[in-house]
Amino acid sequence: MALIVQKYGGSSVADAESIKRVAKRIVDTRRAGHDVVVAVSAMGDTTDELLDLAHQVAPISAPRELDMLLSSGERISMALLAMAIHSMGFEARSFTGSQAGMITDATHGAARIVDVTPVRLREALDEGAIVIVAGFQGFNRDTRDITTLGRGGSDTTAVALAAALDADVCEIYSDVDGIFTADPRVVPKARKLDVVSAEEMLELAANGAKVLYIRAVEYARRHGVMINARSTFSSGQGTFVLAPGMSVPAGIAQPRSEESPMEEPIVAGVATDLSQAKITVIGVPDVPGKAAEIFTVIAKSGANVDMIVQNVSAAATGRTDISFTLPKSDAATALRALAGEQTRVGFESLVHDDQIGKLSVVGAGMRTHSGVSATLFEALSTAGVNIEMISTSEIRISVVVRGDELAEAARVVHTAYGLDGDTEAVVYAGTGR
Amino acid sequence: MALIVQKYGGSSVADAESIKRVAKRIVDTRRAGHDVVVAVSAMGDTTDELLDLAHQVAPISAPRELDMLLSSGERISMALLAMAIHSMGFEARSFTGSQAGMITDATHGAARIVDVTPVRLREALDEGAIVIVAGFQGFNRDTRDITTLGRGGSDTTAVALAAALDADVCEIYSDVDGIFTADPRVVPKARKLDVVSAEEMLELAANGAKVLYIRAVEYARRHGVMINARSTFSSGQGTFVLAPGMSVPAGIAQPRSEESPMEEPIVAGVATDLSQAKITVIGVPDVPGKAAEIFTVIAKSGANVDMIVQNVSAAATGRTDISFTLPKSDAATALRALAGEQTRVGFESLVHDDQIGKLSVVGAGMRTHSGVSATLFEALSTAGVNIEMISTSEIRISVVVRGDELAEAARVVHTAYGLDGDTEAVVYAGTGR
Repeated sequence: MALIVQKYGGSSVADAESIKRVAKRIVDTRRAGHDVVVAVSAMGDTTDELLDLAHQVAPISAPRELDMLLSSGERISMALLAMAIHSMGFEARSFTGSQAGMITDATHGAARIVDVTPVRLREALDEGAIVIVAGFQGFNRDTRDITTLGRGGSDTTAVALAAALDADVCEIYSDVDGIFTADPRVVPKARKLDVVSAEEMLELAANGAKVLYIRAVEYARRHGVMINARSTFSSGQGTFVLAPGMSVPAGIAQPRSEESPMEEPIVAGVATDLSQAKITVIGVPDVPGKAAEIFTVIAKSGANVDMIVQNVSAAATGRTDISFTLPKSDAATALRALAGEQTRVGFESLVHDDQIGKLSVVGAGMRTHSGVSATLFEALSTAGVNIEMISTSEIRISVVVRGDELAEAARVVHTAYGLDGDTEAVVYAGTGR
Repeated sequence: MALIVQKYGGSSVADAESIKRVAKRIVDTRRAGHDVVVAVSAMGDTTDELLDLAHQVAPISAPRELDMLLSSGERISMALLAMAIHSMGFEARSFTGSQAGMITDATHGAARIVDVTPVRLREALDEGAIVIVAGFQGFNRDTRDITTLGRGGSDTTAVALAAALDADVCEIYSDVDGIFTADPRVVPKARKLDVVSAEEMLELAANGAKVLYIRAVEYARRHGVMINARSTFSSGQGTFVLAPGMSVPAGIAQPRSEESPMEEPIVAGVATDLSQAKITVIGVPDVPGKAAEIFTVIAKSGANVDMIVQNVSAAATGRTDISFTLPKSDAATALRALAGEQTRVGFESLVHDDQIGKLSVVGAGMRTHSGVSATLFEALSTAGVNIEMISTSEIRISVVVRGDELAEAARVVHTAYGLDGDTEAVVYAGTGR
């Protein structure tokens, strides 16, 4: 008998029928003899509809009130879910973020969890009840106000509850079967991974994989929570995300090494990302401190810079070009900020390019294996794909290519690392969010 | 500078535009230099939509979860209202029932208020903020669960807050101008009352007047809260409901006495009610205790009996007939319960009549004036309206007539007591609920 935390996203509880389906899944887990704690998101588009209402009544929403408004979404879904479970003859109790002891700081709209005191949840579990908790929301002790955790909040709620309750596993349900070696919509031969390490998952999520939120994975890694990413719509085992020191759960297919010819898996997967733009600052005086000036300006603008490349200076001019990537949504802000400081910084011009694609190869095995990058570059050149930027981490290599060449690049690289499956993966509409 | 509690019903905050209109009204009150505390209902049909969802996921809803579900409706409207006020440049803070200190018993769906501890509201007021409170909901200390107050809950929330905060007045807004001498939709010449006593209001509300909930009026009477029933859509002064010992607020038109030729007003208004049915138990053995047996059976069935009439026994048969009225919605239950006990009680048969109408004349002046009933009966006979049942209280006379004769009866009686106004009252669609 285990303690299992399950998280269901908005698309899994979009309407009465979906809620009943989820309720049945929860009841089945209970019937199997496990204690169950569920973190649930707001129904379907509820949150967007509430945001729309907020915009209609006020151009700018008071953050405290916006959290009060949005937090009502999960209260609706969790109460309905508890009712559905009741009607199946099982005891279920729903709890708001504050009732569940989800203590956060006072940053409305993007609150950080500072403590989890699930006293009432333990009581309910001891009394044999299935526990339903409102995802995405918390409570600040000083202001005594309701807060929300921001993007990916419900995943974080689930993982935080799993950590606080010392759960055996945190199952995160969406409408995809798990973590794939690549986005099946881009690489048809992508394979579902049975197991992936938390650090690999972090790199994959940070570089375009949408199934899990990086914040939740990071929380799980730090607190030793085992995540199981699986589908609401199938009975598949999904993918287990293992924190450091964790062993593969019994009965789960062994890691990639057994399937792949290699001694140890080098590459876990290939991530693709079309959401970034590239900005090049041309003719920057090649004197110490200029890069610092430029990225201070950008940081102040609030834009999140990802990759940075500085070309070798052309001795003749004593000037150099600095390129960096950032989310397309941040590009305008960054450009405006830079233009405002052009004379002070002394660069010549700015070039904006939003037709780029980023391909990342991620694998813990890279640490101990050489030639990983060679394989990547060779595969790309064979396919005639030009590399515009390169950046690497200990377990990742990322390259920027033309956006319209990204899919092809991903397929050839996926093949080059021997990741291709025999069959084509089933492709779903969304990503469960 | 006064402390004013305002209550806005669902129809007053049905959409973004309505919410902005209400926000302006609140801000105007603040601008006039008053402290403002607002109790707000859920938007338009939100509660019905949530109930519908509940029925879709589960045939019978767990009471605790149903309260959790329904209480989210006011959280949405209050947060939006606070945002709208913010955007007008005024500080506003919304509070849930538990945050507002609305402590209730644990009766989910129909919780009674046991204590009101508005500590946070006082803090917010001291800091110059406009306070918005979720109507209809409370919190139970023992179970630490959210509760709802049931029908008319938001009115009760407003009055309870006014009592706890020692407010100068509790303004209850709906889409009608106030309390009328009769339902303007039935009696076109009905006049709006500037002032009515709480006990008169209780009789009017209990006998068909829909503008105020009897529960809220009773709470106001017991705790000495002055209610001002007025319209969200006009600037009219509305009607003041005075608890015992209260004097008419300064600047308010004086009571009826000045308008009417009479020394003191005898009749405050005429209430009409088509929502009741009549059941006659025929051939009841005329021996002591039979009436008790019958109404014990009905009480156990949960039906609420209103008027009761027992005809004189026909000596020959030693049997009598007992008639009583009750809400149409309770009739089936009561009939089933009685039929089940027919042999034990020993009556001959049951007659069910749902085509009746009840007319009530209410006025504190009745205590000291004779001939009030004579005027009523005379007016009805002149109009050829047959009286089927009569019941009286210290300040009320009610008669049951044919339902299709009720409107005509109300008009002639209204005239007979000199209540007719010179002009026809404006008639609104609904009653603000």
